[in-house]
Amino acid sequence: MTKEQISQRFEELQAKIVRDLESLDGKIKFTTDLWKREEGGGGATKVGANGNVIEKGGVAFSAVHGEVTEVMKRQLNLDGDDFFATGVSIVLHPNNPFVPIIHMNVRYFELNDGTYWYGGGIDLTPHYIDEQMAKQFHIRLERICAKYNKDFFPKFKAQADDYFFIPHRNETRGIGGIFFDHLDEKCGISKNDIFNFCIQLGEDFPSIYSEQVLSGKDIAFDELNIEWRNHRRGRYVEFNLVNDRGTKFGLFSGGRTESILMSLPPTAQWTYCHPIKEKSKEQQTLYKLKKGIDWLSLGG
Amino acid sequence: MTKEQISQRFEELQAKIVRDLESLDGKIKFTTDLWKREEGGGGATKVGANGNVIEKGGVAFSAVHGEVTEVMKRQLNLDGDDFFATGVSIVLHPNNPFVPIIHMNVRYFELNDGTYWYGGGIDLTPHYIDEQMAKQFHIRLERICAKYNKDFFPKFKAQADDYFFIPHRNETRGIGGIFFDHLDEKCGISKNDIFNFCIQLGEDFPSIYSEQVLSGKDIAFDELNIEWRNHRRGRYVEFNLVNDRGTKFGLFSGGRTESILMSLPPTAQWTYCHPIKEKSKEQQTLYKLKKGIDWLSLGG
Repeated sequence: MTKEQISQRFEELQAKIVRDLESLDGKIKFTTDLWKREEGGGGATKVGANGNVIEKGGVAFSAVHGEVTEVMKRQLNLDGDDFFATGVSIVLHPNNPFVPIIHMNVRYFELNDGTYWYGGGIDLTPHYIDEQMAKQFHIRLERICAKYNKDFFPKFKAQADDYFFIPHRNETRGIGGIFFDHLDEKCGISKNDIFNFCIQLGEDFPSIYSEQVLSGKDIAFDELNIEWRNHRRGRYVEFNLVNDRGTKFGLFSGGRTESILMSLPPTAQWTYCHPIKEKSKEQQTLYKLKKGIDWLSLGG
Repeated sequence: MTKEQISQRFEELQAKIVRDLESLDGKIKFTTDLWKREEGGGGATKVGANGNVIEKGGVAFSAVHGEVTEVMKRQLNLDGDDFFATGVSIVLHPNNPFVPIIHMNVRYFELNDGTYWYGGGIDLTPHYIDEQMAKQFHIRLERICAKYNKDFFPKFKAQADDYFFIPHRNETRGIGGIFFDHLDEKCGISKNDIFNFCIQLGEDFPSIYSEQVLSGKDIAFDELNIEWRNHRRGRYVEFNLVNDRGTKFGLFSGGRTESILMSLPPTAQWTYCHPIKEKSKEQQTLYKLKKGIDWLSLGG
């Protein structure tokens, strides 16, 4: 499978996901912002806002190529002359505080010497953690992983816990999911199957999210729930701007700022030492923002 | 002047500024959050919210000491065994979009081998730039600098332009002000006078800000102005979390997160490719978020 074929399938994946999300939401319309990269390639950022469910969302596709720059050599530890990178990235910020934020990414990277790898993952950031829905989310991911390699889920789950962590808050961003990088045929899977794995993650994404949406979207909420949602969005901003390696690399290497920061929430809030009521739903959520929770084994 | 005397005067400066800001605002009451640092020292973070003018503000004092850690050696390029650091930091986020955000900081750093330096500055981030008020702000800073060394203002003004810059937006954070670091008696000023310079910046701070407040606080504003203010607050978040060396150093070296992130606005907003009307006040502000503007020479 050539890099052109991979990027074409990623672009089709983007189109399918947008169709599915529009139908899930019932109101939102994604618009397409095409852009070109001076040094080679470009992308299509599809964004939507003020839907029934999704307050702000983006589904981005890009396929870029060019010389391996000094920043890339240093930060990505690369050794080639020319690179090609293509991927699909999604972040959805729902309106209802009882519907989680979701993020997905699949990407392919290739150097002119033939080296390649895939990376990606899906992770969920509920404003309020519902254990049953957290379990269901991990069941879906485990099922996809198991088709390809039985070691993938535990490994990628642990990597998500480590990656989506905010050290200065000593909190995970949400309930994790799966995260993988530098996946190639030395990882107990053929190159073709890594591609199929990534495509399946993308194709199952709308259905995985729709379970979460349907579970939360009709729960009534008040001003306090919105305030809490906005503070959790603040943490999302902190993770993305302070800790996320992809965002930092993108911004420092001169990537397209609006596409990179499409992940930021529509609104966010910060209160000094934001008070949390004892035994509240908010406190219960905070207690579960920890690494290493075995969501699959939770009761029910 | 001993380090104990310096930190005591800084603590008094904090108290004076809080008194003056409470009187300027007329409603806000700052509360004190005392904290200790396990490795030595501590601080008092004074925060206020929902005033007549100030929606969220903090005036922080700290005096910490201990071993120079590996992170400090690497990031601050230090060579001593033990350090002492004391300072006052202020960030005020006003409610009215026509009142600017302001930031001030003075700090003193000393190593056990006798090496020391002062750092600090004041900078202004108007949501809407009013040239006359921008000029007035720089006049006040120039006047203080000129008392100590005629080269300070142009030098520190250029340093503020460079420091308060957001590369990924190609925008300055606001209209700058002054910024200095590693100021010691080799910089054409006695150690005592650097101290006096820092104290004067702090003592003049409430009066400098009150001019800005009085000019904007009674201007009527609508939903669009608030939305714009919130987007500018978003940029403030981006600068502080992505670019500000002090914030990054604090977070990565295990500083007290709530005190460091006291600088974040009460709310912020992000819209993909946020549209700006041609020839609007918003566009006129964007045009002036550039380095090197000689605010003192502007007409009027």
